[in-house]
Amino acid sequence: MERYDIAIIGSGPAGLASAINAKTRNKSVIVFGSSDLSKKLTLAPVINNYLGFYGIRGAELQEKFKEHIDNMGIQIENVKVNNIYAMGEYFSIMTSKDTYEASKVILAMGMEHTKPLKGEDKFLGRGVGYCATCDAPLYKGKIVTIVGYNKEAESEANYLAELASKVYYVPRYKDEYQLVSAVEIVKDVPVEIVGDKKVEKLKLKSRELETDGVFVLKDSAPPEQLVPGLYVEDGHIKVNRKMETNIDGCYAAGDCTGKPYQYMKAVGEGQVAALNAVEKLYTKA
Amino acid sequence: MERYDIAIIGSGPAGLASAINAKTRNKSVIVFGSSDLSKKLTLAPVINNYLGFYGIRGAELQEKFKEHIDNMGIQIENVKVNNIYAMGEYFSIMTSKDTYEASKVILAMGMEHTKPLKGEDKFLGRGVGYCATCDAPLYKGKIVTIVGYNKEAESEANYLAELASKVYYVPRYKDEYQLVSAVEIVKDVPVEIVGDKKVEKLKLKSRELETDGVFVLKDSAPPEQLVPGLYVEDGHIKVNRKMETNIDGCYAAGDCTGKPYQYMKAVGEGQVAALNAVEKLYTKA
Repeated sequence: MERYDIAIIGSGPAGLASAINAKTRNKSVIVFGSSDLSKKLTLAPVINNYLGFYGIRGAELQEKFKEHIDNMGIQIENVKVNNIYAMGEYFSIMTSKDTYEASKVILAMGMEHTKPLKGEDKFLGRGVGYCATCDAPLYKGKIVTIVGYNKEAESEANYLAELASKVYYVPRYKDEYQLVSAVEIVKDVPVEIVGDKKVEKLKLKSRELETDGVFVLKDSAPPEQLVPGLYVEDGHIKVNRKMETNIDGCYAAGDCTGKPYQYMKAVGEGQVAALNAVEKLYTKA
Repeated sequence: MERYDIAIIGSGPAGLASAINAKTRNKSVIVFGSSDLSKKLTLAPVINNYLGFYGIRGAELQEKFKEHIDNMGIQIENVKVNNIYAMGEYFSIMTSKDTYEASKVILAMGMEHTKPLKGEDKFLGRGVGYCATCDAPLYKGKIVTIVGYNKEAESEANYLAELASKVYYVPRYKDEYQLVSAVEIVKDVPVEIVGDKKVEKLKLKSRELETDGVFVLKDSAPPEQLVPGLYVEDGHIKVNRKMETNIDGCYAAGDCTGKPYQYMKAVGEGQVAALNAVEKLYTKA
């Protein structure tokens, strides 16, 4: 298996800044993200505080970023990363399709601003999960509910429907849902996950669903779920001035490391993370 | 005297990033620097790692920065800051012309890469100084040598010539020197400052100058000389993740806080420094 020098999780400003710096230093890079880079950025009406671009629309700045990485031959792998394991000399990166290896990892997946559901933390690992395809075998013949925050969650629901006896899909966005007929769409607002020793029900605003499992599928899983053993403080990945996390070889940059949630802060941290990761590659070689 | 919300020392990428962020938050800002912003940036042939601008020349990026601050009505005070004193509620900022006041200070003066002369640290305050106009009264009727790293040093030499019995000027750059006739230009390379209890001589490569004082005038004085009490580690201003220094209300950003010496790192830190300074202004009001 090809082992990349650096794997970057996220294609927002922090991830792209990491990528261009690693690439400039001639390192092999893989960037996991979305082909439209950062949805949040696209939606920004006017940006006045990214030095060099006064009064630029988010979509235009996005376009500049795209040109930049295109010029450097950087591609984005449009696939969701489910888990990252520190293997000692390298990291193993599991996506819903394949597994990848990289010597260093830079976490730049942004910040999930939606709050966890009531009961979500309590039942984590006891019926609550963040990767339906990973945990699917546990729910053979059982009832599963997916709370989906984006379109990608639909394919996880369809996959689960092949094994589970019943799949509820509670969408938290508006779209044309592409779901197999076995999946029941429940347009309601989730309120609380309840149960005794394990998940028994998902309470919604106007009804309750009896369910053996609840998958909460957002743009990114909580960082400590994504990288087991990662130290997180108040919802942010703890880093030092070199953007090192508590895990050797694992760096973080951008919104996921804390406030302010800002573009220049993100690109600056992305650069620092990448250059420090590159330096460690040299010294270990 | 007008008290600015935030005084920014330096007009490189970090200083400008601080300025646009403070201004966006509607704070009054004064930026001390150079009207050509950053000489180092101007000289960069090609920059590939400032996200959004691929393959841009330094001078072009400089021009983009200039447009940005012009659009926001930010001006640069083309005057050298000699000393900054923490007065408790505010800072007193002494320049060679006037004194200014600001509630918060952001240090973004870059990094002085030239090494100190042999003996410079040893005789600091005992004949060695970094501000000739400040210390001029001490040298009435005495012999003074100025090691000048830039054109601004010439006016300090001219000023000293009015009081001192003799002024030597050792230029470390090439230009047409605009010096009064009383100043003797010595084109040679300084090697060591020597003396017993205080400065007695400046050794040059091919001669020695008997002198009572030596002023080493670079683009910026060492940070701990600029701001008495500032904590500096290995030549860099010690900051935390909020870009706070050890002095309450005093922040730092860019090259002066440490490696990597890079543009995105600088603008990111400038932004973080400014936004944290702004937040403190609110909470104290």
